[in-house]
Amino acid sequence: MNALLPLAAAGAGHGSEAVPTILLVLAFVVVGAKLAGELVERLGQPAVLGELLVGIVLGNAALFGGPDMSGLAASETFTVLAELGAVLLLFHVGLESTPKEMMAVGGRATLVAVVGVVTPMLLGFAVGELARPDESWMLHAFLGAMLAATSVGITARVLKDADSLRTSFARIILGAAVIDDVLGLLVLAVISGIITAAATGAALSGGTIALILAKAFLFLAGALVVGSVLSPRVFRGALALRSRGVVQALSLGFCFVLSYLALRAGLAPIVGAFAAGLVLEEVHFEGHVKRGEPPLHESLEPLIGLLVPVFFVRMGMLVDVRSFASPSVLGFAALLTLAAIVGKLACALATPKGISGLTVGLGMMPRGEVGLIFAGIGAQLVLNGRPVVDAGTYAAAVFMVVATTMATPPLLLWSIRKP
Amino acid sequence: MNALLPLAAAGAGHGSEAVPTILLVLAFVVVGAKLAGELVERLGQPAVLGELLVGIVLGNAALFGGPDMSGLAASETFTVLAELGAVLLLFHVGLESTPKEMMAVGGRATLVAVVGVVTPMLLGFAVGELARPDESWMLHAFLGAMLAATSVGITARVLKDADSLRTSFARIILGAAVIDDVLGLLVLAVISGIITAAATGAALSGGTIALILAKAFLFLAGALVVGSVLSPRVFRGALALRSRGVVQALSLGFCFVLSYLALRAGLAPIVGAFAAGLVLEEVHFEGHVKRGEPPLHESLEPLIGLLVPVFFVRMGMLVDVRSFASPSVLGFAALLTLAAIVGKLACALATPKGISGLTVGLGMMPRGEVGLIFAGIGAQLVLNGRPVVDAGTYAAAVFMVVATTMATPPLLLWSIRKP
Repeated sequence: MNALLPLAAAGAGHGSEAVPTILLVLAFVVVGAKLAGELVERLGQPAVLGELLVGIVLGNAALFGGPDMSGLAASETFTVLAELGAVLLLFHVGLESTPKEMMAVGGRATLVAVVGVVTPMLLGFAVGELARPDESWMLHAFLGAMLAATSVGITARVLKDADSLRTSFARIILGAAVIDDVLGLLVLAVISGIITAAATGAALSGGTIALILAKAFLFLAGALVVGSVLSPRVFRGALALRSRGVVQALSLGFCFVLSYLALRAGLAPIVGAFAAGLVLEEVHFEGHVKRGEPPLHESLEPLIGLLVPVFFVRMGMLVDVRSFASPSVLGFAALLTLAAIVGKLACALATPKGISGLTVGLGMMPRGEVGLIFAGIGAQLVLNGRPVVDAGTYAAAVFMVVATTMATPPLLLWSIRKP
Repeated sequence: MNALLPLAAAGAGHGSEAVPTILLVLAFVVVGAKLAGELVERLGQPAVLGELLVGIVLGNAALFGGPDMSGLAASETFTVLAELGAVLLLFHVGLESTPKEMMAVGGRATLVAVVGVVTPMLLGFAVGELARPDESWMLHAFLGAMLAATSVGITARVLKDADSLRTSFARIILGAAVIDDVLGLLVLAVISGIITAAATGAALSGGTIALILAKAFLFLAGALVVGSVLSPRVFRGALALRSRGVVQALSLGFCFVLSYLALRAGLAPIVGAFAAGLVLEEVHFEGHVKRGEPPLHESLEPLIGLLVPVFFVRMGMLVDVRSFASPSVLGFAALLTLAAIVGKLACALATPKGISGLTVGLGMMPRGEVGLIFAGIGAQLVLNGRPVVDAGTYAAAVFMVVATTMATPPLLLWSIRKP
């Protein structure tokens, strides 16, 4: 059989050893997500729920004698493909609105966002005091931070599936969710900084906190202002280019650069992608479309169709259903989830008149990947020789993330459609 | 500054540490490739040459004080993205013809392919006897094998750029190139097997060789026959699915599965992707297009626009321009390149009447990634305690690959367009 080895190497060598796995997984994800999405859509649910379910089944298949997929979910390539899916989705979501429209809801969205960050933080802190009374106040504050960020991906997808992206409640939800993502990351940074400082015995300076805040603010303001000035000029200049696909190349380049800059400014890449989408407007490449280029939203659709299911399937795969076996973990999980839900429903109180507070509150509910990332960071932080987020807390956090994420699509869809 | 660390972790944690790099590189590749492509197109060259040049500049930037990109070119994620680009390109190329049309040129293409494998092998063997007389005949045979495979990617791209995919010479070139890829991999497998057997003192059995051949043949015949029967039925059945993007999801799933099976059968994934493209025909999803789905070639275009430049830029990055500093390496490289060019131009003798033999011979010339992979495998094979392909031979092989690859686009384009 040794003669087969070089041949196998020749085959695998056409890329790397990851190529066969990724080919098979992409085939399964793209077809499985479509079929599962169709199934749940017939049950009146958004397709994204089907994709999450495919992920949960795939991620826990080893429990039922299936293959172990944990290596795949953690693999660099699969993670990057999923992350590109999230970036393209948020870029697409951003394209649906313009900076002007966002400004118009800006004040109201900011109020909703602040309520949606402060209330869950206070409730999370209270749950910590109640259920983990012996632990430090810093750990309780970290629990609060985990509840703060809204994961805009799920909500954006439901709003898109329900054809509601251009409604005023959608603009408030998406605007507030993006602000929440920024605020949540700031809160996480500050609390993590305090914990790290406490662990090393150093003091956290006000200057460092100010620097973090300044970078985030500068990035967003800079992206919106500079982008809005540059974009129409660049595309007008690009009319000199005669090759096909110029609009797609320049737009994707812009989206990827802003996502990268967001990361470098300490924010999530999806914040940059969203900003890029806000800045670009179809009118900027009118001239290109007139001479036969496909409009941007049309050329984004196939990319989204391939990569976005990878993102949601991977999010499902990260759920370990075994976490929910311990009663004490379940009790803590229930408390945390309640705090997460009530905390975001409080946004209803800040919703302007004429817009359903319930819809806005439900739209702010999902924690998704952001909550999972916060929990993961907490698991790596050490205080008094123990991780800030221990195994039980991690399982409870995962439950909270899954519950808020999976409950959002049907509840939000119901709230949008009810008379 | 330690407070910034958790924030950076929070940002990077949204995916993996590869995310920022890939975002920046994708932005650069997608925009850079478009601009360089435009530039060389104005000089009358195909856009792919510009993408290769971007890759060579990027890959050797460290020599001129730029960043070191060797880690990126070798990274799993970038390799997989490039490989997905090659798979999608060959899928697209396969879509342009049908099995029937391929059968019609099958006999003539096979004759061209056999000439295009046997002649370069004999010439490569002769170069080995001449330039490396003290080495084993097995090493000389390996040199011959390195010259055998045609890399269809470059040629397919030139033919596509020249709007010539549906001509009869294009079908002969593409058919012969695919057969060459299969034959080349078989030759490589057999010679690698003989070398491995000699190194371990074992004998290579005829049964093992027969098994290798049978697997490759069964894969291709099976894919074409089973696929042609299944495809129309599956798409007719899929008319029951109401969600958007069904054609894209099923087609990509089919393409990825066949690419995976090709790898498992010991072939290159692009052979599977090409077979998948051959089998699928637009008529199979006529019903879907009628109710508003975009035709497959339209939804493939954005995917190709994003991923195919990654493939060609990466191929350019793999070229280390420093290899060409030694005169003895340059002499060996020149001989090997001459053997490679003359060996494939011999295909002209097997070209049927009424079709330009020169065009077909030039179309068969590029070795591209296949030649590089062969050289890489040779560098890992050990005979008499030394690698079969040593540093000098490797550099010469790279020169041969680069020369045949970069000479093909302008020469082929000139041959197609000359009166």
